[in-house]
Amino acid sequence: MEIQRILVTSRIHHKLKDLIESHNLSKQFRFLPEDEVTKEDYEWADTFVGFRPTPNFEFGNIKWVHSLAAGVDSFMKINWKNDVLLTRTIDVFGPKMSQYCLSYILQDTQLHEQFSNLQNENKWEFHIPKSLEDQKVVIYGTGEIGGHIGKVLSSLGMKVYGVSMSGNKKQYFEKIVPFQEASTILDHTDWIISVLPSTNETKNILDKNTFKLLNNVGFINVGRGATVCEDSLKEALNNGNIRKAILDVFAVEPLPADSELWQMPNVKITPHISAVTLPNDGVKCFVNTLSTLENNEKLRNVVKIEKGY
Amino acid sequence: MEIQRILVTSRIHHKLKDLIESHNLSKQFRFLPEDEVTKEDYEWADTFVGFRPTPNFEFGNIKWVHSLAAGVDSFMKINWKNDVLLTRTIDVFGPKMSQYCLSYILQDTQLHEQFSNLQNENKWEFHIPKSLEDQKVVIYGTGEIGGHIGKVLSSLGMKVYGVSMSGNKKQYFEKIVPFQEASTILDHTDWIISVLPSTNETKNILDKNTFKLLNNVGFINVGRGATVCEDSLKEALNNGNIRKAILDVFAVEPLPADSELWQMPNVKITPHISAVTLPNDGVKCFVNTLSTLENNEKLRNVVKIEKGY
Repeated sequence: MEIQRILVTSRIHHKLKDLIESHNLSKQFRFLPEDEVTKEDYEWADTFVGFRPTPNFEFGNIKWVHSLAAGVDSFMKINWKNDVLLTRTIDVFGPKMSQYCLSYILQDTQLHEQFSNLQNENKWEFHIPKSLEDQKVVIYGTGEIGGHIGKVLSSLGMKVYGVSMSGNKKQYFEKIVPFQEASTILDHTDWIISVLPSTNETKNILDKNTFKLLNNVGFINVGRGATVCEDSLKEALNNGNIRKAILDVFAVEPLPADSELWQMPNVKITPHISAVTLPNDGVKCFVNTLSTLENNEKLRNVVKIEKGY
Repeated sequence: MEIQRILVTSRIHHKLKDLIESHNLSKQFRFLPEDEVTKEDYEWADTFVGFRPTPNFEFGNIKWVHSLAAGVDSFMKINWKNDVLLTRTIDVFGPKMSQYCLSYILQDTQLHEQFSNLQNENKWEFHIPKSLEDQKVVIYGTGEIGGHIGKVLSSLGMKVYGVSMSGNKKQYFEKIVPFQEASTILDHTDWIISVLPSTNETKNILDKNTFKLLNNVGFINVGRGATVCEDSLKEALNNGNIRKAILDVFAVEPLPADSELWQMPNVKITPHISAVTLPNDGVKCFVNTLSTLENNEKLRNVVKIEKGY
């Protein structure tokens, strides 16, 4: 594919301009805030780069859209034009989300809160941390990000299982099963991590039918809030199926100040920060994708429109 | 070396008996609490196994001593008999201490305390975690344990440097220097981790001469308390050379209830738990060492008496 005219839209278009220009690409660019893009820009450009579609998004002469974010649900709301390529930012989210998940697993196994409470009382009291080697984790979503989390956690000795649409095998996973067989691998699970994207198939897919199979499990959601039935989650937290939930994503964001979740003692809340695309992350991936495209090499980050990720 | 009669002493001798007997070794054993061992036991045994010497320890006919602990400072207080082999438990401490160190580094980079405070106020406020990829760590002590920590942290993208007696190169480390050249690698360090053993050479080796070279560094001590000059550490914490100290070991343990350290806001204290030898860890290593010895293979866990580790 040959690319000439690239429309980059974002609130931080100045920042993106600096970053992209440092790569000395011999292309024409327009850098605009999202609400200043016109119909003429879409006619002019062959490529659109942004974190989300602009409010007046149209395909015009666009043949390639690159999402600076990893999640593309905002683009999926568009009635997609068949011959337009959609790519998304990859490679930066795996390491970031791995570190997020690992930090909360280790906070738990290393008894941070227990020792902190003892320290408050000047109290030397012996407790033995749990070893990661004794812990089993099931990762929902075994694509690029889930696969990276699996790699990191297995390298530290955790036993890693996966649940995915296909159920296909993958390195670092003891076993991966399709959704409808999840119940066969959930026993004796210490942790569930969900990195599921938001699609028609995944809406509320983690509900009481899954949670009732769990016993005293730590639940981490770094995927999308819409994949979890919040009422079922609260119930599972109250009845011990889930002993602790670490939530970075919610059905409604920001999480409303009057949400019951904030003050539940066994819930930790972070404001959707487990994988922030820094401008430079998205730009690097855009530059790499452009080069791959122009060299007619195989792309690893094409979004399958029919699947939604 | 041929081994026949093994004296195992510990408060938990019953537990050790169960664990050792599960290995079906064709040896004679005596399992005793430390204060019930007699002179006759030392005459009878050719091997001594324990976490520390008994109060009335003597060599008798002992030709091999295996320490169920990794740290052998308690054995070093004995006037060692030249032809007696001393081995120590290895391999279990690297993973454990790595997980301890990583947990506190991630607690910091992932802003656990900041998000926890915000949650207390039902407050959704965006902050971006730091990436491990941007962090530089210097590990004091690059033996088996420090080497393992270096491997784990570098696999997660941290830039790892080391300081050791020899300054010899080692995999996963960008650079290792001898103590007297430490100043050449301390600039722009984010973390110092010490796993130094307690020896004559390491006593108070981390003092103001080292700390004054640091700027806003996180300091983790999982080695021995005696290697750190506590007054210099407090000073460094107060003047910002060190921004945070995570201490698992102390000159005096348990840390006295009236120690100033307990309530210093930038100090975290844990009660010497970063690498607890569980009975089974020490027994596994003893059984492996016995087999290595009897097959005349090369031992990896011999203590060099003159070095003290």
